[in-house]
Amino acid sequence: MKYEVIDAVISPEEGRLDILSKAEVGKLLDTSQGGLYKVFRNCALAVLNCGSSIDDGKELLERYPSFAIRVVQEQRGIKLELKGAPAHAFVDGKMIKGIKEHLFAVLRDIIYVSDEIYKNPLFNLETSQGISDAVFHILRNANILRPMHNPNLVVCWGGHSISRKEYDYSKQVGHELGLRGLDICTGCGPGAMKGPMKGAAIGHSKQRIKQGQYLGISEPGIIAAESPNPIVNDLVIMPDIEKRLEAFVRTGHGIVVFPGGAGTAEEILYVLGILLHPDNEAMPFPLIFTGPDSAGEYFEQIDRFIAGTLGPKAQQRYRIIIGDPRQVAIEMEAGIRDVRAFRKSTGDAYYFNWMLRIDKVFQTPFAPTHQNMKNLALHKNQETHVLAANLRRMFSGIVAGNVKDEGIRAVEQYGHFEIQGDAGIMELMDALLASFVEQHRMKLPGKKYEPCYRIIQ
Amino acid sequence: MKYEVIDAVISPEEGRLDILSKAEVGKLLDTSQGGLYKVFRNCALAVLNCGSSIDDGKELLERYPSFAIRVVQEQRGIKLELKGAPAHAFVDGKMIKGIKEHLFAVLRDIIYVSDEIYKNPLFNLETSQGISDAVFHILRNANILRPMHNPNLVVCWGGHSISRKEYDYSKQVGHELGLRGLDICTGCGPGAMKGPMKGAAIGHSKQRIKQGQYLGISEPGIIAAESPNPIVNDLVIMPDIEKRLEAFVRTGHGIVVFPGGAGTAEEILYVLGILLHPDNEAMPFPLIFTGPDSAGEYFEQIDRFIAGTLGPKAQQRYRIIIGDPRQVAIEMEAGIRDVRAFRKSTGDAYYFNWMLRIDKVFQTPFAPTHQNMKNLALHKNQETHVLAANLRRMFSGIVAGNVKDEGIRAVEQYGHFEIQGDAGIMELMDALLASFVEQHRMKLPGKKYEPCYRIIQ
Amino acid sequence: MKYEVIDAVISPEEGRLDILSKAEVGKLLDTSQGGLYKVFRNCALAVLNCGSSIDDGKELLERYPSFAIRVVQEQRGIKLELKGAPAHAFVDGKMIKGIKEHLFAVLRDIIYVSDEIYKNPLFNLETSQGISDAVFHILRNANILRPMHNPNLVVCWGGHSISRKEYDYSKQVGHELGLRGLDICTGCGPGAMKGPMKGAAIGHSKQRIKQGQYLGISEPGIIAAESPNPIVNDLVIMPDIEKRLEAFVRTGHGIVVFPGGAGTAEEILYVLGILLHPDNEAMPFPLIFTGPDSAGEYFEQIDRFIAGTLGPKAQQRYRIIIGDPRQVAIEMEAGIRDVRAFRKSTGDAYYFNWMLRIDKVFQTPFAPTHQNMKNLALHKNQETHVLAANLRRMFSGIVAGNVKDEGIRAVEQYGHFEIQGDAGIMELMDALLASFVEQHRMKLPGKKYEPCYRIIQ
Amino acid sequence: MKYEVIDAVISPEEGRLDILSKAEVGKLLDTSQGGLYKVFRNCALAVLNCGSSIDDGKELLERYPSFAIRVVQEQRGIKLELKGAPAHAFVDGKMIKGIKEHLFAVLRDIIYVSDEIYKNPLFNLETSQGISDAVFHILRNANILRPMHNPNLVVCWGGHSISRKEYDYSKQVGHELGLRGLDICTGCGPGAMKGPMKGAAIGHSKQRIKQGQYLGISEPGIIAAESPNPIVNDLVIMPDIEKRLEAFVRTGHGIVVFPGGAGTAEEILYVLGILLHPDNEAMPFPLIFTGPDSAGEYFEQIDRFIAGTLGPKAQQRYRIIIGDPRQVAIEMEAGIRDVRAFRKSTGDAYYFNWMLRIDKVFQTPFAPTHQNMKNLALHKNQETHVLAANLRRMFSGIVAGNVKDEGIRAVEQYGHFEIQGDAGIMELMDALLASFVEQHRMKLPGKKYEPCYRIIQ
Repeated sequence: MKYEVIDAVISPEEGRLDILSKAEVGKLLDTSQGGLYKVFRNCALAVLNCGSSIDDGKELLERYPSFAIRVVQEQRGIKLELKGAPAHAFVDGKMIKGIKEHLFAVLRDIIYVSDEIYKNPLFNLETSQGISDAVFHILRNANILRPMHNPNLVVCWGGHSISRKEYDYSKQVGHELGLRGLDICTGCGPGAMKGPMKGAAIGHSKQRIKQGQYLGISEPGIIAAESPNPIVNDLVIMPDIEKRLEAFVRTGHGIVVFPGGAGTAEEILYVLGILLHPDNEAMPFPLIFTGPDSAGEYFEQIDRFIAGTLGPKAQQRYRIIIGDPRQVAIEMEAGIRDVRAFRKSTGDAYYFNWMLRIDKVFQTPFAPTHQNMKNLALHKNQETHVLAANLRRMFSGIVAGNVKDEGIRAVEQYGHFEIQGDAGIMELMDALLASFVEQHRMKLPGKKYEPCYRIIQ
Repeated sequence: MKYEVIDAVISPEEGRLDILSKAEVGKLLDTSQGGLYKVFRNCALAVLNCGSSIDDGKELLERYPSFAIRVVQEQRGIKLELKGAPAHAFVDGKMIKGIKEHLFAVLRDIIYVSDEIYKNPLFNLETSQGISDAVFHILRNANILRPMHNPNLVVCWGGHSISRKEYDYSKQVGHELGLRGLDICTGCGPGAMKGPMKGAAIGHSKQRIKQGQYLGISEPGIIAAESPNPIVNDLVIMPDIEKRLEAFVRTGHGIVVFPGGAGTAEEILYVLGILLHPDNEAMPFPLIFTGPDSAGEYFEQIDRFIAGTLGPKAQQRYRIIIGDPRQVAIEMEAGIRDVRAFRKSTGDAYYFNWMLRIDKVFQTPFAPTHQNMKNLALHKNQETHVLAANLRRMFSGIVAGNVKDEGIRAVEQYGHFEIQGDAGIMELMDALLASFVEQHRMKLPGKKYEPCYRIIQ
Repeated sequence: MKYEVIDAVISPEEGRLDILSKAEVGKLLDTSQGGLYKVFRNCALAVLNCGSSIDDGKELLERYPSFAIRVVQEQRGIKLELKGAPAHAFVDGKMIKGIKEHLFAVLRDIIYVSDEIYKNPLFNLETSQGISDAVFHILRNANILRPMHNPNLVVCWGGHSISRKEYDYSKQVGHELGLRGLDICTGCGPGAMKGPMKGAAIGHSKQRIKQGQYLGISEPGIIAAESPNPIVNDLVIMPDIEKRLEAFVRTGHGIVVFPGGAGTAEEILYVLGILLHPDNEAMPFPLIFTGPDSAGEYFEQIDRFIAGTLGPKAQQRYRIIIGDPRQVAIEMEAGIRDVRAFRKSTGDAYYFNWMLRIDKVFQTPFAPTHQNMKNLALHKNQETHVLAANLRRMFSGIVAGNVKDEGIRAVEQYGHFEIQGDAGIMELMDALLASFVEQHRMKLPGKKYEPCYRIIQ
Repeated sequence: MKYEVIDAVISPEEGRLDILSKAEVGKLLDTSQGGLYKVFRNCALAVLNCGSSIDDGKELLERYPSFAIRVVQEQRGIKLELKGAPAHAFVDGKMIKGIKEHLFAVLRDIIYVSDEIYKNPLFNLETSQGISDAVFHILRNANILRPMHNPNLVVCWGGHSISRKEYDYSKQVGHELGLRGLDICTGCGPGAMKGPMKGAAIGHSKQRIKQGQYLGISEPGIIAAESPNPIVNDLVIMPDIEKRLEAFVRTGHGIVVFPGGAGTAEEILYVLGILLHPDNEAMPFPLIFTGPDSAGEYFEQIDRFIAGTLGPKAQQRYRIIIGDPRQVAIEMEAGIRDVRAFRKSTGDAYYFNWMLRIDKVFQTPFAPTHQNMKNLALHKNQETHVLAANLRRMFSGIVAGNVKDEGIRAVEQYGHFEIQGDAGIMELMDALLASFVEQHRMKLPGKKYEPCYRIIQ
C-alpha cells in the first residue's frame, strides 16, 4: 500500500527556537546532519504520524521510507524542510499547528538539548545529582514547568493497547479529574495515554478552563510506537527511558495507573522502587491503580506479584479502585492537597519534586541486550528497592522486544531474551506475563502476540 | 427509580446579568415568579440536565417533579436558589461552570428579554421588520454576535437521534470544519447537534484555536428534549421556533444538514422557502446535505420530495455530498468566502445577515393544534415559497407531537393529527414519513415509534 | 489667526456602537441631525480639541466655525464624517485612537442615550428614583462600571485653572494614589483634573498596573471649557450638571478636593449637602481637602464659609491636609477600606452607591437665568441640606457666567447676575468670592477676571 | 543629612529567575557573595535609588553606606534580603513593583550572566563574533528581544543633565514618536534619557498602546549615575560600556541624539565609527541629531568637529533637525521603514542587527587609566573608523572622570587626564570641550564643573 506524502517548508511559531544566535543555528545544522540525524528524523516522523494508530515503530518507519528532514538556515532564524512527509499532518497543504509545535519540540529536545546539555561541560552526567539537573534543564528548556501554580498535574500510566471498555473508563477518569481542575501528563501515545487527556479536555471545557495542560513525555525509542496524540499541548522528548521516568515522578503530583502490559508493569516497579527508598518514606505521593470491572483480575495479579516480591510495605504505597472514576478523582485531589501541604512545609518547589530521592540505579540507562537481560539479579538477597530496580529493567527489556525498532530487530536476529532468577520470583513473573498474554495486553488487539522472552530456571 | 438531587444557591459569573439596576432586579423577581415561571423553571431544568440522554421533554419533567428555582434579590445583584436540582450538574457540591453559564442564559433569555423586549413599547412585533429587530436584540443581548470577525459560523442541522455511524460521520465533518478554523452553531441537543461540535473542538484544539465558538440556539419548547451539550459555550434561547430558525439563518454563514427526521425536514423546508424568495436570488448561501453511505437513501428521498413539491429551482440551492467529510469542509469554506465577498460588496454586517428577506409567513408562530394541522394548505396553487412555508408547518406539528411536552399531551388527548392536501404532495409526504419511520428517524433508537399523525386524502 | 483643519471619515473601534440594528442606525441619523445637532457638534468639537488649553467654551466654538459632523449610515454600521476638524487631533492624517474613542463616546452619550433613555417611556425622570436609574443606565451603557472589582476609585475635584505649584501638588497626590493601586475619576479638564490622572498614570506604571481607570465625567455645558485630557480612558458625558454630580458621588469611593474657584465650591456644597441628609449619616465617605502650602488660606476660607453657613456637623465630614501628598493617599486608602466593609455588610454594589440618599433638590437641573439667580433662598430658615443645595446653585450660576457659552452670552446681554440673602451669609460669600478673584481662581492665569455677578443686600 | 532606610526580604515575580535548579541557586549564592559582590551591591543600590536625581555615583554610594544585599536560598527558589535600602523604593513598606523588577534584573545580569556566560567555556570572548554572541545571549536572557514584531525601536541618546527647555523638547520628540507607535530605548538615566520615554508613554497612552517597550540599557559603571527611571519596563545591564553600545546599535532600528556632553559625543563617535566601516556602507540606519533652538549651536559644533576629523562621508550619515519634533518622528518612521525593507530583503532578524559589522576595536573595553588616555592615537594617519574609535575612547575617559566612581577617584588621586594628538584635532577638541563646559553640559546644573582632563600639545 502506498501512503500519500507531501513536501513542505515549515517556520517555527513563537517559542524556544524563535530567537537563535548565528552560532546556535550553525550548531543545529551540524548536529542535525551529523550522528543524531537518524534519531531526529525518526522522532520527527513519529510526531507527523499523530492520529494514526500504528503501534509498531518498525512499521511506521517502513511506511515512509523516503521521508527526510533538514534544518534550513536563514539569517533571521531557521526553518524545517520536509520531503515525503505523511499527508495527514496537513490540512489543505498547511501543516496542522499542533503538529508543527510537536515537530519543533523534536528539534528542540533532540538537537538543541544535545548541544546545550550533552556537549556542555558544566553538566556532569556521571552523578545522580547531575542527571537530575539535566532532567530539570530539559524540562525548563521545554517551557513546561509552571511556576506560581498550585500542584495539579496527574500522571496517567497504562497500556497503549487496551480494550474499548478500558479506554472509555480511562476517559471517564480523565473527565472526573478535569472537572476538578486537574491537568494530565502521560507518555503521549494512544490507549490509556489518550483516554484521560480526552476526558480531561471535556471536563476542562465544561468548567471553562482554557489553560489546561496536557503534557506528553516521550523518548526517542518509544515515540514512534506511541506517537503524541493531538491533544498534547506540551510535548517533551527526554533522551532516554530513565530520564523520561524521572521526569514523570518529578513533575507529576500524583499517579493513576490503568491496566497495561509489560510497560505498565515497568512503570509500577519504577515508582514503587523509588518510594521504597528510606529517604522518601515520609513523602506523600498519591498512587492509584484503577480500571473497570474487567481490569479487576489484572490488578489482583499485579498486587499479588508485588506482595510476593516487594512485600506489604510496597502495597501500602498504592490504592486499588475498581469501577469508580469519581472516587479515583476525589482521592487523587485529596492526595494532591497533601502534596501541596508537604511541599509548602518543606519549602520545595511545586513544579519540580527536588526532594524526591532517586537512587542512581534508577537513573542509569539499561540497554536490553540479550546478555544484560540474562544477567539481571532477580532474587531477594538485596535491598527491596534494588530488587524493584532489576524487575523494572526486566520489564523494560520486554517492552523493547515488543514495540521498539531496535529491540524488535535484536529479537529477530538473536532469538528470545532469556530471563532467570529465584524460583519464587520466576513463578510469579511467569504467571504475570502469561496473564498479560492471555488478556491480550502485549500488543494492539487483532495481532497475535509473539513473545520475545523465555524464562529459564 | 429515584434520581439524586441537590439544593443550592448560585451566583452569576461576570456577564450580562452582573450589573443590574434595582428596578431591573425588581422586575426580574416579579416576572420570574409570575406567568413565565413555568417556562423559566422547565428551561432551567433542561440545562441542568445537560449530559443526560433523555429526548423526551415530558419524561425529564416527570423525573424531577420537586425541582424549583427562584431569583433571590440582593442589593449587590441577584442569585438563583435551586431546590431539587439534578445532582449530575454539580461536582463535589459545586455547580459545573458551563452549566452555570447556561442557567444564567436561561434567566437572561426568558425573563430579562421578556422585560426588555416584550414589555417594551419600542418594539413592534406585528411587523416583519419588528420581529427581525427583536431577533437581533435578543442575540446582541446574549453577547453572541462577534463584530470585527470574518464570517466562519457553520450551522449544523440534523437529527438528535441518529445511528452511531452517522454520529461519527457528523463528528468527522465537524473535525474537518474545525481544522479549517470554522465555528459551529447547532440546535444544541445530542446526535447531529453534538457530533459536529465535538469534532470541531478537537479540530480547534489541534490548530490551537482557543476562541472557537460553539453556539447553541434553542427555544423553550424543544430545550427539554434537546438539552444543551457540554461543549456549547454560547447559548441563546429564542422565544419560539420561528425566531430560533431566523436566528440560525441570520447569524450562520452556511448550513450543513445531516440526516434527521421530521425536525430536519422542517429546517430544510424553512431555509429553502426563504432562499426561494425572489429578493434572495442573488445571495450566496452555502447549503450542503451530507451523511455517510447509510444516509444516501435518506437524502435521495428528501431530494425527490423537494423535486416533486418545490421543483428544480429549489434543488439548485443545495449540494448533496455522501461519505466525504473533507469535501464538505472544503466546499463550505469556499462558499463562506463568497458570503464574505457578497457582504463586503453590499456593505452588510458579517455577524448578522440583515439583507436576507424573510417573509412574514416564516416568522409567524404556528400553533400545531389539531385544527391548524388539518387546515394547512398543502397544494401547488400558491407561490412556491408559501408552499414551502406550509410544508414546514406540517413537519413542525409532527415534531411537536413526537417530542414536545404540549404536543404529546395533545395527541394523548385528541388522537392523531390529521393532514390533507394535493394527492401528489400527500403521496410524496406519505413516502417520506414512512421512510423516516422505517429508518427509525423519529425517536431515539430502542423505543418503538408511535406515529402522531394520519394522512387523510 | 487661522487654525489648521482636516476633513475625515471615522469608523468606530470595538465597543458599544459596533453592533447596531438598522432601526438604531436610523434613529441615530434622525436624532443627530435634529434638535440635538448643536450640542452633539459642540461636544464633538470639544473632545477633538483635547490637549489644547482654551478654557473658554465660546472661544473654542469661534475658533472652528466651519466644523461640522454627520453620522453616515452603512448597512454594516455607522461612521462619522467630519468637516473642518482641528488638525491636532490627527497624526499624519489618522485620528489619534484615544480621541476617536472620546468622539464615539460623545455620539453614544448624546445621541444614543437620548434615544434609549429620554425617548423611552420605561424611564420616569420625574421621580428621584427614576433619575438615579437614568444615571445608572447611562453609566452602564458607557461600560464604565466594573463589577467583581474592589472599591478603588478616587474622585478628584478642583480648579481647571490653578498655579503650576498647585498643579504639581495635584500630580504628586495622584502619584501617591496610583502607587497604592487607586484609580482616578475627574471632571476631565485641565488643572486639578489633569494633574492627579497624570500622577496616577506614572504611579500605575511604576507598579506595572495596566488596567488603571482614568474616568472622565463631563456634561455638554462644561465640556468645551474642560476638554477631556488625553489620559482619560473612560469618558462619559452626562446630560446635565446634576446628573454629572450624581455620577461622581455614586461611582466614586472617596473624594479629594484640590483648590479651585466657584466650580470647586459648587462641588463641595453639593457633596456636603448630600452627606448632611439624615439617611446618609452612618455611611462612610472619605472626603479630603488638600493642596500645597499656598492653598492653606484657600481652604481656611472655605472652612470658615462652611462653619458659618452649614455648621460643625458639616465640618466633621471632611479633613483638611496641607502639603502632604503621602498622607492624603494613606487616609484615602484607609477610608476606602471602610467603604468596602460598609458595602459588604449592607450588601450594596461596589461599583454603584445605591444606598446613598440624594434628595430630589440636588437632582433637579438649575437654569442660571438672571431671574433664578436672584430668587435663590440664601438664608438659614431652612434645613441645612436645603441651604447647601441653594448655595450650590448660586455657585453653579457663577460658573456658567464665567466659562459656559450660554452663560457668557446671557451676561453679555443682561449684565451681572444679582445675588441676595441673609446678611451673614452674604458677607461670608462676598469674602469668599473676593478671595477667589484675588487669588486668580476664576480664570486661566494671564487673563483679567471680569466678575459676572453682583451681591445686593 | 541622614536618609531613611528600610530592611526587607523580596521575592521575584514571574520571570527568568523564578525557575532555578538547585545547582543554579548554589552558584548564585557563591557568585553573589564572592568577587562580584561589590558590583552587584552597587548596581542594586542604583536601581533602588530610582526617581532620585543624584548624578554622581560616588555621592550615591556614600549616602547609603550600610546598604547590604544577600541572595537567600530557599528550596523553592531564591529571595533577596536587603538591609539599609533607600526608603523611597517602597510604598507603605512594600517595594514598588517596577523597582523590584529592576532589582531582579540586576541579579540576573550581574550574577546569573556571569555564571552562564563568563564561566561558560562555550563562549569565546576573544573574538569579535564571540563578543557579539555574548551580547546576544545577555539580551535574550533578559527577554527583551521581541520576535514576530516589526522594527519600531528608537534609541535616544543625549545628556542626563540638560536644561528644562531641552528636556521638554526631548519629551515632545518622544511624544511624536509614541503617537506613531514607536518604542524607546535609552541609557535609562534622567534628562534626555527620561524625556523621550515619558513623552512616548503619553503618546502610547493616547493611541491606546499597552505593550510599549521602554528599554533601558545600562552598565555597572554608569548605572549609579544614571539610575533607571521609573518608566523603564525592560532593563538590561551589560557587562561594560562597549557591550552596552553594541546592544544599542544591534537592537535599535534608528537613533535620535539630543544635546549632551562628553557621553553623547562618545556615543556619536561610536555609531559613526561603525557606520563608516565599508561593510556597513549599504545598510540603512536612520540617525538624527535634534534639539530646540537653544541646541543649534551645540550641534553646529559637533558637526564642525566631525567635518574636521572624520570628513563629509561621516556627515552624510546623519541629519540635523532643529526645533521640529514632528519632523524628527516623521523622518525616523520613514527611516525605519527602510530598515525593515533591508532586513527583509537580506533575511536578517528584525530584533537583532546581525549584519552590522562591528570592528573589534569598538568591542574591546577601554580602561581610562591616565596612561591609556595619554597614549590614545588622535591623528589622521589611520583609517577613519579607527580614528573614530580612538576619539570615542577619549570621550569615554572624560565621562569616567566626570561621573563614574572609579574615574572620579583616579582623578582625585593622580590629577587631570592628559590628552595629546594632531594639532588640528586637538584644536577642534579643545573648542568642543570648552563649549561643553561653557554650555554647562558636563554636570547637573547648579554645580560648578571641575574639568578632569588637560590637552597637551
